[in-house]
Amino acid sequence: MKELEQAVLRFGKVPSDGILKVDMFLNHRLDTGLIKKMGQEIASYFKEKKPSIILTVEASGIALAITTAMALNDIPVVFAKKSSALNQGLNRYMADVHSFTKNIDYKMSVEKAYLPKGSSVLIVDDFLANGEAVKGMLKLIDLADCNCVGVAVAIEKGFQPGGDYLRQNGIDLLSLCRVKSLENNKVELYSQD
Amino acid sequence: MKELEQAVLRFGKVPSDGILKVDMFLNHRLDTGLIKKMGQEIASYFKEKKPSIILTVEASGIALAITTAMALNDIPVVFAKKSSALNQGLNRYMADVHSFTKNIDYKMSVEKAYLPKGSSVLIVDDFLANGEAVKGMLKLIDLADCNCVGVAVAIEKGFQPGGDYLRQNGIDLLSLCRVKSLENNKVELYSQD
Repeated sequence: MKELEQAVLRFGKVPSDGILKVDMFLNHRLDTGLIKKMGQEIASYFKEKKPSIILTVEASGIALAITTAMALNDIPVVFAKKSSALNQGLNRYMADVHSFTKNIDYKMSVEKAYLPKGSSVLIVDDFLANGEAVKGMLKLIDLADCNCVGVAVAIEKGFQPGGDYLRQNGIDLLSLCRVKSLENNKVELYSQD
Repeated sequence: MKELEQAVLRFGKVPSDGILKVDMFLNHRLDTGLIKKMGQEIASYFKEKKPSIILTVEASGIALAITTAMALNDIPVVFAKKSSALNQGLNRYMADVHSFTKNIDYKMSVEKAYLPKGSSVLIVDDFLANGEAVKGMLKLIDLADCNCVGVAVAIEKGFQPGGDYLRQNGIDLLSLCRVKSLENNKVELYSQD
């Protein structure tokens, strides 16, 4: 998506190798108009598959998830929680996730009532790198006996394995912007043209 | 706001005294259509004051902040981060906040570049109880030499002091739903009519 690519090239920062910071429009300050258009783009791509729920994970995915949901006739959004011991229990689906970015393991969970069996779920998130967060959400969808109609992310780090893993497993993946390299503190994108 | 009040009465749960859970439409599952209308209501109330930035705090405030921003011609949203030692530094405004709900102290921060001096800031959040999170955001606005045009919250716990504190300090507060009592596991609202 041209406008997002331009924002990444203009405002993206590479503080260290492999790290892309887009705090200016996606992860701290939100460019409302851009995130609205990104949601419309995702909705337009997936609308034929008639998703009934959008699943994301707190916190950075929420803004894009809600603009996508608005563009899909206001379907509900469920955001998985990064769980502490406090909100575990029998009424939750749980998945173990390893974050390479933060080098921690955590549990991701959703209350069972919010993923009704048989729902068609579209996963939306801000970043796709190693794919661990998406794998966690796929696990939750599987536990809930729902089906995943696809995965949409704002930015795919194309030099990390998450995107290829999903495509090789037959999952319909829409990456609005694909990063080719972050070497030498420089952002290089795959051309989308 | 009628529709929100109805949702609170229908879906709100009071697991223990003073605690209101609205996971069904605001804090875990998001009722997209309702949150869109809530944003429109807030925008309509504050639009004459021409806010240029919406400030909220991760994670539950983000959805309402973005729908409000969309209804205000796509002004940007900045969400304050609950800081760890990792993201402190000279380039951030910081405020100390005590959470009565979780009984913890934490630091709230915003990168300085995202609150430019002189901005007119509208604070948006999901809950107002003791008002500690809002006070933290007011502190950030003050540090940034911005002015706060008002505070909008989805749900005010009217039996806790945050709302009265803000009104007594001359802050324009819009609470879309005011809870009168959560005693005996029952939700009672102030009538808005």
